[in-house]
Amino acid sequence: MDPIRIAIVGIGKIARDQHVPAIRGNGAFSLAATVSPHDAGLPGVPHHASLDALLAQGPAVDAVALCTPPQVRYDLAAQALGRGAHVFLEKPPGATLAEVEALKTQADKVGATLFAAWHSRFAAGVAPARAWLAERRIDKVSIIWREDVRVWHPGQAWIWQPGGLGVFDPGINALSIVTHILPRPFFLKDATLVLPENRAAPIAADLVFRDTAGAPIHMDLDWRQTGPQSWDIVVETDAGTLRLSQGGAVLTLPTGTEHGDDIEYAGLYSRFATLIRGGRSDVDTAPLRLVADAFLRGRRETTDPFHD
Amino acid sequence: MDPIRIAIVGIGKIARDQHVPAIRGNGAFSLAATVSPHDAGLPGVPHHASLDALLAQGPAVDAVALCTPPQVRYDLAAQALGRGAHVFLEKPPGATLAEVEALKTQADKVGATLFAAWHSRFAAGVAPARAWLAERRIDKVSIIWREDVRVWHPGQAWIWQPGGLGVFDPGINALSIVTHILPRPFFLKDATLVLPENRAAPIAADLVFRDTAGAPIHMDLDWRQTGPQSWDIVVETDAGTLRLSQGGAVLTLPTGTEHGDDIEYAGLYSRFATLIRGGRSDVDTAPLRLVADAFLRGRRETTDPFHD
Repeated sequence: MDPIRIAIVGIGKIARDQHVPAIRGNGAFSLAATVSPHDAGLPGVPHHASLDALLAQGPAVDAVALCTPPQVRYDLAAQALGRGAHVFLEKPPGATLAEVEALKTQADKVGATLFAAWHSRFAAGVAPARAWLAERRIDKVSIIWREDVRVWHPGQAWIWQPGGLGVFDPGINALSIVTHILPRPFFLKDATLVLPENRAAPIAADLVFRDTAGAPIHMDLDWRQTGPQSWDIVVETDAGTLRLSQGGAVLTLPTGTEHGDDIEYAGLYSRFATLIRGGRSDVDTAPLRLVADAFLRGRRETTDPFHD
Repeated sequence: MDPIRIAIVGIGKIARDQHVPAIRGNGAFSLAATVSPHDAGLPGVPHHASLDALLAQGPAVDAVALCTPPQVRYDLAAQALGRGAHVFLEKPPGATLAEVEALKTQADKVGATLFAAWHSRFAAGVAPARAWLAERRIDKVSIIWREDVRVWHPGQAWIWQPGGLGVFDPGINALSIVTHILPRPFFLKDATLVLPENRAAPIAADLVFRDTAGAPIHMDLDWRQTGPQSWDIVVETDAGTLRLSQGGAVLTLPTGTEHGDDIEYAGLYSRFATLIRGGRSDVDTAPLRLVADAFLRGRRETTDPFHD
């Protein structure tokens, strides 16, 4: 089978660190081009300043991976789908829920694959955690996601602007895991969002969810953590405690601990190839929906200004 | 066919003004009971202080209409569905999108009807507007929804609290119409929410949407309008201008104006009966999704305090 010719649109940090090695490590794909108005691209790979230019001048592509900030992603995705190309959406899949729904409809109409990628779902501990929890009674869940924004998002202005999600940009990774591993749906009961007085997005948040059987789920998000970083999910069940740490890479069950390799983006591209070959889409908006619910229903508090 | 025995839960202003006459005017239903911890109920109709008490002590009901504030609606709906009762949700259908999704899943599982009611969709001009627009090219849409909150929501504290939506409580009516009559989906591009400094919900908002063919949709929401009230939707098309005014009751086409009677709640209960008899649900969350997107992505401005 010919490899799927793919272009990366938005060749910033996440594209260089993760997408390029994952595409080059997967024989189902060939990296055909890159697109960015800002960056120079990669040695030996055709580069254009815009998706328009790529589509007009070639090389031909079968698929695009959109790694731009979410605020500009809809137009690029609609344009690519309009040409019948398959589309990989980095997380979050859009700046709004309604635009993702519109893309879903368009992809179904043109028969192209749309993939809303949630990389944390492919962390090593997540699939076994999901399998282990499927048969348990869930008593209580605690999510602690505390990191240093200066380390992980240095100078990224878009992340603080409306549509940029603030601390929910990492927090949505936790939600993508928890919506995947818990056996029941859950929804927001209470939320407090803490915003620096000079920013439009939260730097911290405290959230209380409940699943449909009544189990409480507490989430502590904070971008002001220096020193050791915390990306932990703890699930208390009738069979003991499950702990996913390091963002899902390390799984601890009552029977012991498993350390997995980092396979997130390799897993995503393997899944994207399977979807394309099977003529299917995978667009789960549940994590973004929970974030929108937090903005809709949360109380807001103001805190000290934040400067990069 | 035996009438559907229905209980109204939350017997406040909207229930007394609209639900009671609509139920009594529809032979498919009989009003079996009312529930409210605050009010005394209606002469000659069994009354309980809680849904628990109604379900424990009777009379038996086949369906419930939930007219409580949205913040407490999920538990009531889940409890009713858990007993196999059909559920009518006043607008908005919940305080969060995720809880409505969870109810949808539950209703499908138990085989009961769940109906997310959008009363403005049953205003007299809406169905003919939808039919007329189906074949048109949409060039531009303008939504002006300006009313006096002191007249329409006197002393309603819940409407200003997180989850209460503020000016989007009426604004979602406009969105329920526009999502129903336009031939293409649309999504938010930009939003400014204006909040009184002493309230947690907006008193005004300015929103810009775009449909998937690029047509701009502008929405002007304001709760500070005294004097004449405005509930107008204007759609410019290749065949001239359509205007829906008075909240959808009056339709003006290039060929003339039609004034309809107020049939909104009669239409809703007729639809609810059809859904129940057909074993189907109707849960369109598109209007609430657009509101959540506005909270997710909107800029916020602070304005003068608001006092009832």
